[in-house]
Amino acid sequence: MDNNLVDGGHLKAFIERIEKLEEEKRAIADDIKDVYGEAKGTGFDPKIIRKIVSLRRQDKSKREEEEEILGLYLAALGME
Amino acid sequence: MDNNLVDGGHLKAFIERIEKLEEEKRAIADDIKDVYGEAKGTGFDPKIIRKIVSLRRQDKSKREEEEEILGLYLAALGME
Amino acid sequence: MDNNLVDGGHLKAFIERIEKLEEEKRAIADDIKDVYGEAKGTGFDPKIIRKIVSLRRQDKSKREEEEEILGLYLAALGME
Amino acid sequence: MDNNLVDGGHLKAFIERIEKLEEEKRAIADDIKDVYGEAKGTGFDPKIIRKIVSLRRQDKSKREEEEEILGLYLAALGME
Repeated sequence: MDNNLVDGGHLKAFIERIEKLEEEKRAIADDIKDVYGEAKGTGFDPKIIRKIVSLRRQDKSKREEEEEILGLYLAALGME
Repeated sequence: MDNNLVDGGHLKAFIERIEKLEEEKRAIADDIKDVYGEAKGTGFDPKIIRKIVSLRRQDKSKREEEEEILGLYLAALGME
Repeated sequence: MDNNLVDGGHLKAFIERIEKLEEEKRAIADDIKDVYGEAKGTGFDPKIIRKIVSLRRQDKSKREEEEEILGLYLAALGME
Repeated sequence: MDNNLVDGGHLKAFIERIEKLEEEKRAIADDIKDVYGEAKGTGFDPKIIRKIVSLRRQDKSKREEEEEILGLYLAALGME
């Protein structure tokens, strides 16, 4: 007789679904690392590729606006 | 004529592979959030499930050893 | 004459205040690492100390409640 | 009589030193947030200030080199 109010089978099912997904996520993260490694092996700079991937996710007009403000600030600071 | 030494097509292929993988990774991360949400909706505590998922990834004997040291330290501090 | 709407002196003052504070924060972070290193040198386990520092920041009754739920879940899973 | 091999007093001293430093670190982190808030209240864009603080920590020649490679890559991709 179960004197525990927790449904172990149900809980285990949730945990195993999460573990399977976490496993898949780690595999994809490894794949991403591999592509960067491959790009590096071909002579590309992984850091710059990472920057471009990030830039491409940003809204273009928003990015341009930020670049413009950055330019104004750097000029005001005499940093350019 | 291309006066740039960078092979744009090759670079673009790397970037698109990375973007596709990043997209998949985000989709899986969303799925994981959904499972936690579903578990919560069934009455389970997501925070505790997260803890169990983490515990299950640790080596059992290592985890037990750490629990034992923690117990000794807490006792020495009078925290138990 | 300044044809830039950005007040460079004012901006620079903010940046320098932030940089000074960031510097102080890094120095303290280094000090913390040093104390952990010192504790390790005396034979203590830094990972367990970190765990205790974290436990002490949590509300005691909340922590006990979480431990209890964790125990119930682990029992339901046959993990204990 | 102490049948625990752990020196509680010594351990407690380490923990309290860490807690004091952690407290100071949090206070400084709050101060930093306040300066950003103040800058924002004066009309500056906190996100751009953060970017400049980060740029100033980088080595200038290294930063310029990276900007140049980024420019070449964006041109090769037709992104400029």
